[in-house]
Amino acid sequence: MTTTTTLSTHDAAFVRDLHVMSQFGATENGGVDRQAASAPDGEQRRWLTGLLVAKGFTVKFDGAGNQWGLYEAVAGAPYVVVGSHMDSQPTAGRYDGAYGVLAAAHAAFRVVEKWTAAGPAGRPKFNIAVVNWFNEEGSRFKPSMMGSSVYTGKLELETALDTTDAAGVSVRDALDAIGCRGDYGGPEAAYCAEIHIEQGRSMEREGITIGLVHSNWAANKYEFVVHGGQAHTGSTVIADRKDALLGASMMVVAARELADHFPGVLHTSVGQLTVYPNSPVVVASRVSLLLDLRSADESVLAEADALLHRRIPGIERLANVQVERNQSHSWPVTPYQPEGVELAAKVAADLGLANKPVMTLAGHDSTNMKDIVPTVMLFVPSVDGISHNEHEYTTDEDIVAGLTMLTEVVNRLCDGALED
Amino acid sequence: MTTTTTLSTHDAAFVRDLHVMSQFGATENGGVDRQAASAPDGEQRRWLTGLLVAKGFTVKFDGAGNQWGLYEAVAGAPYVVVGSHMDSQPTAGRYDGAYGVLAAAHAAFRVVEKWTAAGPAGRPKFNIAVVNWFNEEGSRFKPSMMGSSVYTGKLELETALDTTDAAGVSVRDALDAIGCRGDYGGPEAAYCAEIHIEQGRSMEREGITIGLVHSNWAANKYEFVVHGGQAHTGSTVIADRKDALLGASMMVVAARELADHFPGVLHTSVGQLTVYPNSPVVVASRVSLLLDLRSADESVLAEADALLHRRIPGIERLANVQVERNQSHSWPVTPYQPEGVELAAKVAADLGLANKPVMTLAGHDSTNMKDIVPTVMLFVPSVDGISHNEHEYTTDEDIVAGLTMLTEVVNRLCDGALED
Repeated sequence: MTTTTTLSTHDAAFVRDLHVMSQFGATENGGVDRQAASAPDGEQRRWLTGLLVAKGFTVKFDGAGNQWGLYEAVAGAPYVVVGSHMDSQPTAGRYDGAYGVLAAAHAAFRVVEKWTAAGPAGRPKFNIAVVNWFNEEGSRFKPSMMGSSVYTGKLELETALDTTDAAGVSVRDALDAIGCRGDYGGPEAAYCAEIHIEQGRSMEREGITIGLVHSNWAANKYEFVVHGGQAHTGSTVIADRKDALLGASMMVVAARELADHFPGVLHTSVGQLTVYPNSPVVVASRVSLLLDLRSADESVLAEADALLHRRIPGIERLANVQVERNQSHSWPVTPYQPEGVELAAKVAADLGLANKPVMTLAGHDSTNMKDIVPTVMLFVPSVDGISHNEHEYTTDEDIVAGLTMLTEVVNRLCDGALED
Repeated sequence: MTTTTTLSTHDAAFVRDLHVMSQFGATENGGVDRQAASAPDGEQRRWLTGLLVAKGFTVKFDGAGNQWGLYEAVAGAPYVVVGSHMDSQPTAGRYDGAYGVLAAAHAAFRVVEKWTAAGPAGRPKFNIAVVNWFNEEGSRFKPSMMGSSVYTGKLELETALDTTDAAGVSVRDALDAIGCRGDYGGPEAAYCAEIHIEQGRSMEREGITIGLVHSNWAANKYEFVVHGGQAHTGSTVIADRKDALLGASMMVVAARELADHFPGVLHTSVGQLTVYPNSPVVVASRVSLLLDLRSADESVLAEADALLHRRIPGIERLANVQVERNQSHSWPVTPYQPEGVELAAKVAADLGLANKPVMTLAGHDSTNMKDIVPTVMLFVPSVDGISHNEHEYTTDEDIVAGLTMLTEVVNRLCDGALED
């Protein structure tokens, strides 16, 4: 799909910047591999610093590695925080998170330009902070949404810094290695805005340009550890085996069967599964797996949770294993502030952009931020709904429309549109 | 289970040496972790060199890292090769392989003592070579039985040396790092003998001390790669998913269902399974797995192979994936030379040791050696059949009886018992 729209100079600069960003950690197949605090993540952060500083923004890193681009128009006033994340999954797409940070920067540039052009009469109520949250993806360091969780007080800074990746490298050391651990405490936020790709098909299917996110799906995330016993794969008779991988495989199949039981309203998955000792001739003694259940309907989620746990004793018996539920966390369906959704709907209508209310199935940094300040979350369409994949794509027309939309939302938030 | 037998000085020295060996790569739970060409493997090899040299043996390493302890009693005569392997699976037991190498060394010491005591009249027909084969386990470097495969001409030396582990380290570099890659070409073998733990329960159950291995089970080993597509585990609707881990899990379950279809006569397993990208929030795009089918009955194996492949299209459809059969190898039921089995039966009877013919379900270096020279393979019992597990155990009484048995087999092979 190619875009034939003629872009304004401003919009063309934005599209060019997004192409430049896609070179950091670029993969052969047109995607990116830019996990949190990796070398390409560090290079891209330095590039963003340059972009922000050139427009008169002050760049600071906080203790959790969040990168802040600050523009203080009104001394001492709180900030409208706008941004997303630039880290990626391994072999991921170019838009997830990165689009939101760059759109935030360009939106902020445009709003500041407008203020400057208007002189004292254009003075806003709030300042602007562009943010690049650290480790939204959670592929290298768990949990995901780490930087925004620390900023919003949901995760202790020291706990985050002590977290290690599979190679044993801590967040602290990884951030220091790319020079991105600072001592800034972060700005005082008044409002927040984030724009992101939908990562699903619903907007594309209906010809919608802007999604007005009003709430998130509920999710239960479990870490299960299946315990068996090491044995020789050749000589051990089947009745003597305690096959942890067989038990874990049954859990993966059970998760899909649950989704099939609630067609369309329950999403289930196992993305990560780790086998020990993972040798060709040894029956596995231990397999850990991360299993998610997600639904927009909390009663469906509760029922699915019960059905899943009811399956476990049978799996334990058939595979001769113990299934331990190690850690789990869950979140309910929570709304974004309705006044923020209304503001976004009004902006979209004023700009003539096709829009509809949507839910987010994925977690975002804004789902943390909405718990401390009124937050506006916007989506642009994903072609074929493809995401976490090198072939992730959103048209230039849509990313530019999203930038226009975000700019006006930030403009009105700074002007105090949601005050009183 | 403790052994109350009073051991002879010779036997006590053997048991002591086995305890010393178990310290190399010792784990907290009484097992060992001594993968091929790891640091503990290297240390143990140096220890074995000391043991052999002290008894007048010459120690050489060949190009594939096999460690040879040579005793030439008859200048220029071929060798009776006796040994096993000292590498282990991760968190494995103390007996697997290590017992066979140490028993080989002590058997050789005893035979040489006898020759020395007898003077010129005791001169044998063949010399003795104790061997510690490189990388029998195949957990770090595939394939298993690597050293004996190179020695018997089944695997090219350069292919073996170029093989890399999961961290990208080659066999060549790993052997050089522990100083165990030599330029010795290996001795000319006339006969071979190996002793090993059974790794199953059949001998223990029947009160048998010595197993006379007459053939091996047939095996088919496949590497499957399941191809899906990366997607977001939250936002991607189930119908759009191409879940490689779901497909792989269905393969694991299908393998067990096959074993259940042929109760007792077919062993199936998946020991190794590797997920990409293995991130909590990404539907896996690629999973590779190693799946084994083993049976003493080749017709069962052929039927199981057909049933397995008949299941694949259904798995591909249900999980929306492609299943690729990447590499596979298989071996038929092959006999050890009957004259070797007869010799072993006679020795056991002469020594008054309870014995029976058995098959080996696992592969051993002797299954390679039997294809080039007449080979005697012996088993001692495994308590509870436990193997590839830190709790692997064989009583002192049984390991000593096995040593007595192996000594007399080697003695008679060196004396030419199987000539003409």
